[in-house]
Amino acid sequence: MSEAGVKFELSKEYLDLVVQAIERADNAFILETMEGVDPADISQLLEEATPENTKFVLDLLQNEVGAEVIEELEEDTRQDFLKELNPEEIAEYIEEMDSDDAVDVINDLPVRVREEVIAAIKDPESAAHIQELMRYDEDCAGGLMAKEMIVANVNWTILQTIEEIRRQAENVDKIYSIYVVDDRQKLLGKVSVKRIILTNDTTHIKDIYDEDIKAVETYMDEEEVADIMQRYDLDAVPVINLQGKLVGRITIDDIVDVITEQAEEDMQLMSGISADVEEDDSIWAISKARLPWLMIGLVGGTLGAWAIGFFEGDLESNAALAFFIPLVMATGGNVGIQSSTLVVQSLANRSAFTESFSKRIGKMFLVAIFTGVVLAAISFGIVYIWKGDADLGKVVAISLICVIMLASFTGTSTPLILDKFGINPALASGPFITTTNDILGIIVYLAIANVLLS
Amino acid sequence: MSEAGVKFELSKEYLDLVVQAIERADNAFILETMEGVDPADISQLLEEATPENTKFVLDLLQNEVGAEVIEELEEDTRQDFLKELNPEEIAEYIEEMDSDDAVDVINDLPVRVREEVIAAIKDPESAAHIQELMRYDEDCAGGLMAKEMIVANVNWTILQTIEEIRRQAENVDKIYSIYVVDDRQKLLGKVSVKRIILTNDTTHIKDIYDEDIKAVETYMDEEEVADIMQRYDLDAVPVINLQGKLVGRITIDDIVDVITEQAEEDMQLMSGISADVEEDDSIWAISKARLPWLMIGLVGGTLGAWAIGFFEGDLESNAALAFFIPLVMATGGNVGIQSSTLVVQSLANRSAFTESFSKRIGKMFLVAIFTGVVLAAISFGIVYIWKGDADLGKVVAISLICVIMLASFTGTSTPLILDKFGINPALASGPFITTTNDILGIIVYLAIANVLLS
Repeated sequence: MSEAGVKFELSKEYLDLVVQAIERADNAFILETMEGVDPADISQLLEEATPENTKFVLDLLQNEVGAEVIEELEEDTRQDFLKELNPEEIAEYIEEMDSDDAVDVINDLPVRVREEVIAAIKDPESAAHIQELMRYDEDCAGGLMAKEMIVANVNWTILQTIEEIRRQAENVDKIYSIYVVDDRQKLLGKVSVKRIILTNDTTHIKDIYDEDIKAVETYMDEEEVADIMQRYDLDAVPVINLQGKLVGRITIDDIVDVITEQAEEDMQLMSGISADVEEDDSIWAISKARLPWLMIGLVGGTLGAWAIGFFEGDLESNAALAFFIPLVMATGGNVGIQSSTLVVQSLANRSAFTESFSKRIGKMFLVAIFTGVVLAAISFGIVYIWKGDADLGKVVAISLICVIMLASFTGTSTPLILDKFGINPALASGPFITTTNDILGIIVYLAIANVLLS
Repeated sequence: MSEAGVKFELSKEYLDLVVQAIERADNAFILETMEGVDPADISQLLEEATPENTKFVLDLLQNEVGAEVIEELEEDTRQDFLKELNPEEIAEYIEEMDSDDAVDVINDLPVRVREEVIAAIKDPESAAHIQELMRYDEDCAGGLMAKEMIVANVNWTILQTIEEIRRQAENVDKIYSIYVVDDRQKLLGKVSVKRIILTNDTTHIKDIYDEDIKAVETYMDEEEVADIMQRYDLDAVPVINLQGKLVGRITIDDIVDVITEQAEEDMQLMSGISADVEEDDSIWAISKARLPWLMIGLVGGTLGAWAIGFFEGDLESNAALAFFIPLVMATGGNVGIQSSTLVVQSLANRSAFTESFSKRIGKMFLVAIFTGVVLAAISFGIVYIWKGDADLGKVVAISLICVIMLASFTGTSTPLILDKFGINPALASGPFITTTNDILGIIVYLAIANVLLS
């Protein structure tokens, strides 16, 4: 066989070989080349395959591997693929997943299919876990947590705890800590695996457990959870309900995803892309995500045109006035984005010592004065040397100071206000605010010109 | 005592109480309220204190706690604080730190102090580890890794491995996996702690270890390491040198920091802030970080003014032409940022199936045509209805299509080119490109007007 010795490689060429193998039903080729390959890599390869071909490949692999591949697929690819399966087949994969991943997959299914899948899950404990987790909002601690963890009763011995680890060995991939609870499942503390290894088997948990434990509550926002895990360098954090009972565990890999998604969302808001699109999405999807903000820009531009219209007389008598519209506009835009980004970043790293609103505005004001004066002086020099017109120079310089102050104010206050209303403050660095600053800048500039030059 | 019962709380009020306690040398108050508090919280509190007061507090705490507090301080606060200590005092704290954190702290010291500190470290193994790690660049795997980890020889029994864990118990905080090496320290695989707990003491490591292990090489870029750990959901990854010998370990908490810093850097580049400043830095520091990009904007604006100057005659005969300069400019800016952000995000999630340069440009072209035609049609309608001037409407509409195509091209190609030269592509969403697009937009618009309206 010509492909003898071909090994799995993430490439278009290998994918073509896999597709050819599927066409001639050469299962051996697929099994052989994918053996021992990380499911994340298989997933990335199948991202480029048709749903039918994905099904063909996954049918060949063990359900356990297949489940991991499915978890790692991107949402839209996964949705297309799952349409190829009946509820029983989906349920078989679901049973191989950790409860949090299972819920993520199920939540993407149409409501009717969801119920059929849950009904088809054979293990009653799995089904109960999934139904419990589905009650929580996706963006809170309850929506991130998994039911898989090692829990020890405070009255157990080390030996009993090891027995529990053995019982759960298949379910719990990574242990991190063993959580200690009382008879009512109230979280009391933790024991590290290191401790378990180094302690005598007959010792009781109550004599060695560590009461100093950080836990989060089910309703806590995912970003707050990320913040806590990052600040205290936690690999996993137990989740408790309002009664203090241990109900689940969040692991750091989920938090890494939260942080990455948050950064991507901020970037998209800042750049005016309205949906979660990627470069490899369809032309239609990309256009649809881009058009809304471009429309807003268009409306803003029209309002700008309308504002300039009021000063048509000034422009007719002094066409050079139009020359500096872009300069004033661009400076306003840049200052606004800079100001809002600084606020957005400080909101992301909130601390008890964050400055008050008035102090922030005061500081913003001083920075604006300082940068404004520097830029005004330079621009006066440019206009005076180039045009030999001190009056026009004055207009540009004074406008710049005013526009910088105004843009600093909107740039600083908008993210703070958005944040108060629970809206992502990164929106304030986006096209909407830039457009607003543009229009304000034009009006300020032409109004000052109108007063000083007439 | 009136403060009886006051507990540690991250607040200005508590900080004031601590400062008062320092003044009257009330050590008991400080010790009592800070007992059992997480070092990360003490660190955040001391972030607001003077270096002298920080020293006073840390002198009261155990060196182990103090070391963690120092690790968590922000770079500039830490530098100021360490000036209060002599090299021997610094060395005492250094000895309590993991090797990677120790190197981070030492690297921030002046070169002369650095050597004195290393000479003052009592444990020769610690000193050797630190000197080894200092050889690596901060941004690569070698610069991120720590020497603390559990390593087992493939010929050992479980019992011998447990002995090694006991020996290292104090140094290695979190075990994750036990790395398996041969007699020459070549990395062979790993054993999970779960496996250690569940396996008989007399079993040999060689019979149970897992050969399937992802490792990174010392010279690998930190972002690539982050990518691998994120893709394969790893908590820790062993680092090997060119000979395949195990030399260290990178843990997920360091990678979370890499991801966060990367996101902040991207955001700052996009918003035109040139240094790593924060909202609570001094007015001078913030202004200094902002002025360079504002200057570039100013130069761009001046070039724009100069470009408009060529069309002074057109503007004098038709002042309404000036009205739509902002609209054309803003649309170009928005399209450019959108395009570059999409490319930046796809570069961040690089895969083997990333589209080729020509395919990307082709797709960008189609999206640009589509969005351009939609926006052109709307803007033609607006101009025609408002001004009743079909010719001006045509000029605006055609300009918009051209500007959108142009901005899409620069927005798509610039990040790809920057990336080729090893420059962070997020720069392409920043003020420099926006300014370039602004000027190009103005020239295109006025040139088209000049041709069509004359």
